[in-house]
Amino acid sequence: MDYPKKVAKLLKESEIEVGDIITISSEKGVYKGILMPHHEASCEDILTIKLDNGYNIGISVNDESRIFLVERAAKLVGKENKLDFDESKPQITVLGTGGTIASYIDYRTGAVHPALNTEDLAYSVPELAEICNIKAKVLFSMFSEDLTLEHWQKLAKEAALELNSGAEGVIVAHGTDTMGYTSSALSFMLRNLTSPVILIGSQRSSDRPSTDSRLNLISAAQLAVNSDLGEVVVMMHGNTSDSHVVIHRGTKVRKMHASRRGAFCSINEKPLGTVKEGIIEISGSYRKRGKDSVEVLEKMEEKVCLIYTYPGIKAALIDYLAEKNMGIVIAGTGLGHAANQMIESIRNAISNGVYVVMTSQCFYGRVNMNVYSTGRDLMRVGVISGEDMLPETAFVKLMWVLGQTQDPEEVKALITTNLVGEIGVKRELSGPFQSYV
Amino acid sequence: MDYPKKVAKLLKESEIEVGDIITISSEKGVYKGILMPHHEASCEDILTIKLDNGYNIGISVNDESRIFLVERAAKLVGKENKLDFDESKPQITVLGTGGTIASYIDYRTGAVHPALNTEDLAYSVPELAEICNIKAKVLFSMFSEDLTLEHWQKLAKEAALELNSGAEGVIVAHGTDTMGYTSSALSFMLRNLTSPVILIGSQRSSDRPSTDSRLNLISAAQLAVNSDLGEVVVMMHGNTSDSHVVIHRGTKVRKMHASRRGAFCSINEKPLGTVKEGIIEISGSYRKRGKDSVEVLEKMEEKVCLIYTYPGIKAALIDYLAEKNMGIVIAGTGLGHAANQMIESIRNAISNGVYVVMTSQCFYGRVNMNVYSTGRDLMRVGVISGEDMLPETAFVKLMWVLGQTQDPEEVKALITTNLVGEIGVKRELSGPFQSYV
Repeated sequence: MDYPKKVAKLLKESEIEVGDIITISSEKGVYKGILMPHHEASCEDILTIKLDNGYNIGISVNDESRIFLVERAAKLVGKENKLDFDESKPQITVLGTGGTIASYIDYRTGAVHPALNTEDLAYSVPELAEICNIKAKVLFSMFSEDLTLEHWQKLAKEAALELNSGAEGVIVAHGTDTMGYTSSALSFMLRNLTSPVILIGSQRSSDRPSTDSRLNLISAAQLAVNSDLGEVVVMMHGNTSDSHVVIHRGTKVRKMHASRRGAFCSINEKPLGTVKEGIIEISGSYRKRGKDSVEVLEKMEEKVCLIYTYPGIKAALIDYLAEKNMGIVIAGTGLGHAANQMIESIRNAISNGVYVVMTSQCFYGRVNMNVYSTGRDLMRVGVISGEDMLPETAFVKLMWVLGQTQDPEEVKALITTNLVGEIGVKRELSGPFQSYV
Repeated sequence: MDYPKKVAKLLKESEIEVGDIITISSEKGVYKGILMPHHEASCEDILTIKLDNGYNIGISVNDESRIFLVERAAKLVGKENKLDFDESKPQITVLGTGGTIASYIDYRTGAVHPALNTEDLAYSVPELAEICNIKAKVLFSMFSEDLTLEHWQKLAKEAALELNSGAEGVIVAHGTDTMGYTSSALSFMLRNLTSPVILIGSQRSSDRPSTDSRLNLISAAQLAVNSDLGEVVVMMHGNTSDSHVVIHRGTKVRKMHASRRGAFCSINEKPLGTVKEGIIEISGSYRKRGKDSVEVLEKMEEKVCLIYTYPGIKAALIDYLAEKNMGIVIAGTGLGHAANQMIESIRNAISNGVYVVMTSQCFYGRVNMNVYSTGRDLMRVGVISGEDMLPETAFVKLMWVLGQTQDPEEVKALITTNLVGEIGVKRELSGPFQSYV
């Protein structure tokens, strides 16, 4: 964002541009740092610089203020970052979508909106060149909350194209907000993966000293090159320090913290593994890489919605959603319950051909509509159990299933069948602990 | 539920009723246990008994089957459970609402729906008599997913009445599904608590060997009698074993597991404390008991809704909800984001006088709409930050605030102000780590 008149004039006189390293003298002293773009929350006499410690400060500018150029901004974008190709190393494709992970160049040059240049990203992490050759493709430059079905489909097709053209892995640089939705969608769409598809993100922009993007990117490349994993996974920091990266199955992962670096959790299963100081540890069962070529089943039905119940929720909301959708995923309470006053509307929706899938807003644990009469009433009207799927995963799965088949029995069977690791093995007896002799 | 004809005939001939202890001979051998009601998932020739180990088994009945009465069901309800009053001990009131915690008598007599008789509950936990005199009041007998605003109001008024009549504490026996919503509502409604109001529940029905209801009830009584706490809290098992009970602040607690005993978590703060083998440990800051009398501010606005965003969510859903509500709580992604295509509808809703509060579907962490342009756009159109409140708590709080005032500035101020522990202290700098010099 451009600076207001007063600051702009001072910058022009000194021939300083955003991204340059400067010193500035103010009433409070002399500061050195990278000139940042105007912050829209700032007053018009405030100039923002990024200090060596990574933090931004705003400095009040007056007629006495003086600015000096220390170093001209390195014009990285599209210039000096041609990477040498090393024939002895495998090739990995980084697909850019936007998000915090892409904000390295952003902050240096001044764009406030997410704008990805993955070549710059790769260039800024020189360790990558020791692992692989990086091929970068920018598909979108968007906040992840704006990505929808069509973006998932584009991503799936591009990932398959890259893997089928010989890439040893695909890394998707993605905003963290909706990463779990996208990883679920790619999990259902991409079959017989010959290499992993790895979503990475960053909870701290890459120009900050606390960034997690470098380690996430390096670890993803290591997994792609040095494992036999053939799944869609999310790789993010395992805790608030920089010690290791956790590998989460794409259908079982959820963002559970708004800002912390270790924000992602595998829900209802242990993470697939970790990468720590280059050492990959994979535990539990996982799908290995397929042979031949990757298949893309990208058809999805857009008319599916996701709704969380709460006390006093209106049954009319179900009527409204049922009119506009082919499928409704409910995040009910506890074992998968909804208020009794909603059951009539749910019954009507189902009679009109709408699929209703029940999940739990607890996230952990498993839907079991056999235990209480509310659950049995819901089953009786035709609600399908989402088992131990996350509400988000059930939502994405219902979209995918309805894109594959219109046969009611097939839809029900597919929803309750584990396809790509989205449903775990039942560990408890179902029902009120009843066995038959 | 009544048994089908074949089993019913056999029971009638043998003069056996549900709840009786019987032996039954079958092809597989002789079994002894309590005759349970018919399980609707069972075939019509199946008779269900509860074994001594607490588990139910279904036994196939044929013409050769013989049943013998071992012991007639003790008709506990309303008969033998008059408790002696001990003048040296304080009095605690147990308010019954329903839920699993109330299913002790249920299973013995055969009712499948929750039906609470708190006197029986107290009678079934004789340790209580050593701590206090129990007064039981059954307010409702409902699944917690069916409780709404009017039930919260009734509960608040009854709790205040009891405390203002000299009770040393109020224990609310409540279904676990929506316990966090009710504890939030009571937290906002009940002020100047002269003793704690403690919600307890049970993840295993009280007739099962693995029940958690006894320990939760005893620990709640201990907290009421032996602490200076003056807040609304939830007390539930801390883990899957029977080792201790955790005290959660009513506005910060969430059910995070569908079935496990240690299902409840304090979110964005440590639990207030624990009770382990009768020892109460309270850490951190808490409100102490007030003097004089408890105040009830029970007015709440019913026209408030809660919606979680997801990829592809329709802006028209916001239009629909805005037409019918005075307030909308959004559980957005990450730091509090919604898709850009929704902002116009949110803006319209706010221009029409609807209050929109942003929370995070991550649950952990804090809304910060200063970091990204999406958040700033949301703030610009008038979205109010829910800070680090749970979406459920923000939903209940908005209902409560709109019941107290109609003044827009007051509403905004109250939402963003910590009233009863629902908003924690900010630990991070806000915005893109900007400070001013």
